[in-house]
Amino acid sequence: MASDSAGRVTIADIAREAGVSLPTVSRVLNGRSDVAAATRRRIEDLLAEHGYRRRASGAANRANLIDLVFNDLDSPWAVEILRGVEKVAHAAGVGAVVSAVHHQAASAQQWLVGVRSRNSDGAILVTSEPAPQLNAELRRLGMPLVVIDPAGVPTFDIPTIGATNWAGGRSAVLHLLGLGHRRIGMIAGPPELLCSRARLDGYRSALESAGVEVDDDLVRVGDFSHESGFTLGSALLAGPRPPTAVFASSDQMALGVYEAARQAGLRVPDDLSVVGFDDLPQARWSPPPLTTVRQPLAEMGAAAADMLLQLVQGQTPDVLRVELSTSLVVRDSSAAPPQPSAAGAR
Amino acid sequence: MASDSAGRVTIADIAREAGVSLPTVSRVLNGRSDVAAATRRRIEDLLAEHGYRRRASGAANRANLIDLVFNDLDSPWAVEILRGVEKVAHAAGVGAVVSAVHHQAASAQQWLVGVRSRNSDGAILVTSEPAPQLNAELRRLGMPLVVIDPAGVPTFDIPTIGATNWAGGRSAVLHLLGLGHRRIGMIAGPPELLCSRARLDGYRSALESAGVEVDDDLVRVGDFSHESGFTLGSALLAGPRPPTAVFASSDQMALGVYEAARQAGLRVPDDLSVVGFDDLPQARWSPPPLTTVRQPLAEMGAAAADMLLQLVQGQTPDVLRVELSTSLVVRDSSAAPPQPSAAGAR
Repeated sequence: MASDSAGRVTIADIAREAGVSLPTVSRVLNGRSDVAAATRRRIEDLLAEHGYRRRASGAANRANLIDLVFNDLDSPWAVEILRGVEKVAHAAGVGAVVSAVHHQAASAQQWLVGVRSRNSDGAILVTSEPAPQLNAELRRLGMPLVVIDPAGVPTFDIPTIGATNWAGGRSAVLHLLGLGHRRIGMIAGPPELLCSRARLDGYRSALESAGVEVDDDLVRVGDFSHESGFTLGSALLAGPRPPTAVFASSDQMALGVYEAARQAGLRVPDDLSVVGFDDLPQARWSPPPLTTVRQPLAEMGAAAADMLLQLVQGQTPDVLRVELSTSLVVRDSSAAPPQPSAAGAR
Repeated sequence: MASDSAGRVTIADIAREAGVSLPTVSRVLNGRSDVAAATRRRIEDLLAEHGYRRRASGAANRANLIDLVFNDLDSPWAVEILRGVEKVAHAAGVGAVVSAVHHQAASAQQWLVGVRSRNSDGAILVTSEPAPQLNAELRRLGMPLVVIDPAGVPTFDIPTIGATNWAGGRSAVLHLLGLGHRRIGMIAGPPELLCSRARLDGYRSALESAGVEVDDDLVRVGDFSHESGFTLGSALLAGPRPPTAVFASSDQMALGVYEAARQAGLRVPDDLSVVGFDDLPQARWSPPPLTTVRQPLAEMGAAAADMLLQLVQGQTPDVLRVELSTSLVVRDSSAAPPQPSAAGAR
């Protein structure tokens, strides 16, 4: 049977012929129920007529490949996601093609060329949103997509997998408040990511619920890397009224804060409490073992792969937005503030 | 053009017809020069006649996919290798399919089914050797292979990429000797891996060159994990004559030793020096930053991918055994032993 990679009908063609909008065709392709039955039937007939769904529903035409796309492969975080995706894909006899697009449009275009040539069954995009031009192209390909940790609210009906970031951030800061801390610094992640904003809002919400005013001087914005945790942590500790605790929006930034504390001659947790986010495998091996908010990265990867394989088989996922639970893991990097009286100073 | 995945001619067929051994056909396929010209010509004619090399030399029939196979995806080590492979593959417009076979024959068989179905152009195997049954199967497929960090000396003409493990181990221990240490513990890696044995021999060689007798009580065998570094490090420190320094055969085991030291009330490096191996990104962010032997993991991945793509294009790599240089990175976890007089005690 001939390949359908060249000259195949596009969603736009189907939409035009059916006299409906692109998103309506998308909804039908994604198995959504909010399309009128007659419209759905007309679109499905056209899709069938043009052989559009053949790849999605016919096992014989499947490449048995899915694509997993990161912005960067520079962190142990990525390998956790990959583990989960690989496990599900492997069990299903599907190969997982891993790419990094380095936030670059040229690189994303290159990826797209590869995806078309290998005729991938679908793709999982990690903490990224398709750039506008890619977005249009992916829509045209009609390729099933799932996004892990979307940068923003997806603009069309792409299923997303995330973690309960707001609740996680809130639990970290409630823990520190419970220990008696009142000057709690935060090193947030990149604000363009939804997960960063949710964690920061969790921090604010916890402070507010304890009647502690948010001090903007104590909030810094990093990029999830060790380096930014170190630099911003050093800046926080060098301030006139340094925090007694720091909540970092990633484990890597938290370990950067460890180094900032060490260079400032401060002991963790005696002089400074530190709480991270992720619970990477090394978090429990950092001296002292890191108190952190666990997000189930491998499970998120597995859930995304499960959902994608459902879409590839033409099935409808039960829900399009999944947030897996985070949980606070208390280890040795958090304790009462050094001077109990300081709590009243603020 | 028809797929060549079913019923295609095997190397065994070619060998039989040419009246030569399997390894001879392998050598020709791998572009080796140690085959008599007449024999080579006869084999190449048969390969061409049966269309055997078509996939390897004809761009049109290539899947533009390579497979990257790990035993486990449970360490930041894996993502470093992956980074290098992905970079080269991406630049060449080739997808890298990542799999983990978990040291299990069933899982490896499952991988093999996938590789055949997606008609991969070649594979990179990481710290593993094909199990005997896979070995035969891969040979039959005639698929180009490259091995990173081979478990042992490969049994047939597979190119390998590694690092100068012996020299790296030796440099770590010479550094500790130079600081005045005489009781130096070692936590080695799994002895079935060539790289582990080379690092251990480097340790022994350094001690011998300094006239220090190897004390077998100070050598323990781990599995590269944090856990084993912690357990074996704790055991070393609990002995009647504990070491003043420990050389661990991986950064993760070195960080396990950090935790063992912390729980024993010892400071690094004041009371105990620790040196690792790998130089993972987190090594410089561990309090204190870890002195370690850097092996260029991403470069090893890139070199393996380069070599594999050459083989896929029917080219001959210049050399079949590549060892990239390691280098000692001195940070803050190594210092003179606590009691200078102790140096003379042994």
